[in-house]
Amino acid sequence: MHIRRKPVQEFHFIDSTLREGEQFRSTHFTIGDKIEIAQMLDQFGVDYMELSTPVASPQSADAVRALADMPRRFKLLTHIRANMDDAKLAVDCGVDGADVYIGTSNYMREYSHGKSLEQVIDIGQEIVAFLKSQDVETRFSTEDTFRSNFADVMTVYRAMDLAGVDRVGVADTVGIADPLQTYNLISNLRDVVNCDIEFHGHNDSSCAVANAFCALQAGATHIDTTVLGVGERNGITPMGALIGRLYTCDRSLVEKYNLSMLADIERLVAEKLGIEIPFNTPITGEVAFHHRAGIHTKAVLRNPITYEALNPEDFGLTRTIDVAHRLVGRNAVRERASVLGLDLPDDMLRLVTAEIKALADLDPISLDDVDELLLSLAQPVED
Amino acid sequence: MHIRRKPVQEFHFIDSTLREGEQFRSTHFTIGDKIEIAQMLDQFGVDYMELSTPVASPQSADAVRALADMPRRFKLLTHIRANMDDAKLAVDCGVDGADVYIGTSNYMREYSHGKSLEQVIDIGQEIVAFLKSQDVETRFSTEDTFRSNFADVMTVYRAMDLAGVDRVGVADTVGIADPLQTYNLISNLRDVVNCDIEFHGHNDSSCAVANAFCALQAGATHIDTTVLGVGERNGITPMGALIGRLYTCDRSLVEKYNLSMLADIERLVAEKLGIEIPFNTPITGEVAFHHRAGIHTKAVLRNPITYEALNPEDFGLTRTIDVAHRLVGRNAVRERASVLGLDLPDDMLRLVTAEIKALADLDPISLDDVDELLLSLAQPVED
Repeated sequence: MHIRRKPVQEFHFIDSTLREGEQFRSTHFTIGDKIEIAQMLDQFGVDYMELSTPVASPQSADAVRALADMPRRFKLLTHIRANMDDAKLAVDCGVDGADVYIGTSNYMREYSHGKSLEQVIDIGQEIVAFLKSQDVETRFSTEDTFRSNFADVMTVYRAMDLAGVDRVGVADTVGIADPLQTYNLISNLRDVVNCDIEFHGHNDSSCAVANAFCALQAGATHIDTTVLGVGERNGITPMGALIGRLYTCDRSLVEKYNLSMLADIERLVAEKLGIEIPFNTPITGEVAFHHRAGIHTKAVLRNPITYEALNPEDFGLTRTIDVAHRLVGRNAVRERASVLGLDLPDDMLRLVTAEIKALADLDPISLDDVDELLLSLAQPVED
Repeated sequence: MHIRRKPVQEFHFIDSTLREGEQFRSTHFTIGDKIEIAQMLDQFGVDYMELSTPVASPQSADAVRALADMPRRFKLLTHIRANMDDAKLAVDCGVDGADVYIGTSNYMREYSHGKSLEQVIDIGQEIVAFLKSQDVETRFSTEDTFRSNFADVMTVYRAMDLAGVDRVGVADTVGIADPLQTYNLISNLRDVVNCDIEFHGHNDSSCAVANAFCALQAGATHIDTTVLGVGERNGITPMGALIGRLYTCDRSLVEKYNLSMLADIERLVAEKLGIEIPFNTPITGEVAFHHRAGIHTKAVLRNPITYEALNPEDFGLTRTIDVAHRLVGRNAVRERASVLGLDLPDDMLRLVTAEIKALADLDPISLDDVDELLLSLAQPVED
């Protein structure tokens, strides 16, 4: 079977750091924290921000009101149960939109709310009608979509589309969906509804970025993200990683964002949550542009595109070429020597490279050790 | 378009922690380290282990010889350039197999080795013939496969298949491939060659697990992994996360591995590299089975499958239910009260839950704070 590579159309990020991110283990955001994060993300250019339901606690409601009043370009959303009281309070807090959700899998219907499919549709239509009458942008999402009956979820989505919803939401609530499955569900849904389509994916099986990308290829218009992916359990699609995925596909897709702010935004959130930025984070992880093996460094020194899918400069970052280890190649050693003002002949380079390897076989070595060796063995270039 | 969900066939992991992992920034493995890691992975049940080329340094060659001699069930591989000297040294070190690689993209051919496609095929066939004559299991991989001309790579793979190679390798060297593209390339390759197919995927755009999974669905037989995904730049497919992905698809796929060792293996490697296990690591990350929002904890307490795609007990791990925050629900509070020997009536539970939310709005609170509140407000159940 051949699948043609699909282009990605126009899309919007719904940043949920202040909602899904509040479900992360160590999160305790004050209203000041929420405003600070929202201001940075506004400057970055996210299209929407989603906050915890005002029903959750008094501060949650105050935070929604405070963000509703702040100067901003993003649309303010809150995440509410399919419940009229929750919907009324959301409207009262001044949001631009409400993200309504309800479980549709047998698991959720049995162990969570206990409603039948007909009841789910009835309450959904009632809430959509109410929110639309209040001029509130409305999303209706099933929860645990991928463990729900395919006919059931399509029926619910069609009913909400007919009820005038702005957006239906597909949620991989337990992080179980795979890319082909996501592509398939969303591309079918694209033919069932006329409204926009949102995708929300958890990362339990490490596909939250890939699934979000496949959702966009299949016709989704909105993707839920959080800074660093923080959320319930091990979280959802991280904004930075999804930006990396979209950039490697077509750099122009992410040019609307202020990319050089990405690292600062992640540092801010990591600091507030008391977490380290994972070493393996795309783009902003400390090793994302670190080159080591000889065959890699040789080519990167000639042209970085050989081993870099993304240009670190687009994110205000730099690459590093590592020469202090046993896999070092002589081209990287030549480059390091030239930084030190040394121009070594090839036979000398071979000797020095072998010497670095022998030293690194014994113990971990540093760049200082390499520099010392180079300076001791070579004569500076004459002026 | 409808894509039927594809089953995964029999597969093998090629653990490359001692090769790709040596290209990670902070790696310095002694021979003792290499043996220790290999012993644990052998017990875990990995099928192959790949080591750095013996050409890299004297210790690299000694390590290959040492692992060749150790008691083990896995097959020992080394990773070599398409070069007869490298192939001869590999054979001399006693490996069971050799993973030969060469760049095929224009980038690699221009900035790395400078060979034409015909030269690549000639040297490849010569090396395959030599290695097979030495009874060495042989893989031939193109490098940077996804930026190579489709016709070129298919031509190279067919030539190697005809030359008697055991396995051809598809490498997403720069982490640029997306899931549909990976599925497409490998399913086409599956029709071109009769030999096994290996997939090696970098994680620069966060798809290394998803792409590996799609490769398996498309007919790949071998996947390169490392412990925690450590490797050049931000690494490759992490073994643990891929296990999570396969498990959520069909638990029986990973039953051949000693899953309760996974957390210990990751801790060992993280310690040797001086890195933290990322908070968002599937399965073994500290929050992987941490539940917080009220609607989640209510359902998980009734049946964990509602919000868990994987069962932590299968990995020797446990879940946590978090009650000390503003999103807490009264079902989680009831459960906590019962752990303390308290049976609270519903109206009391509502009050206590509201009080916890109000406290958590002010400051971060701990489980001790919640327990103190519960004990102060309630009477113990009478015996």
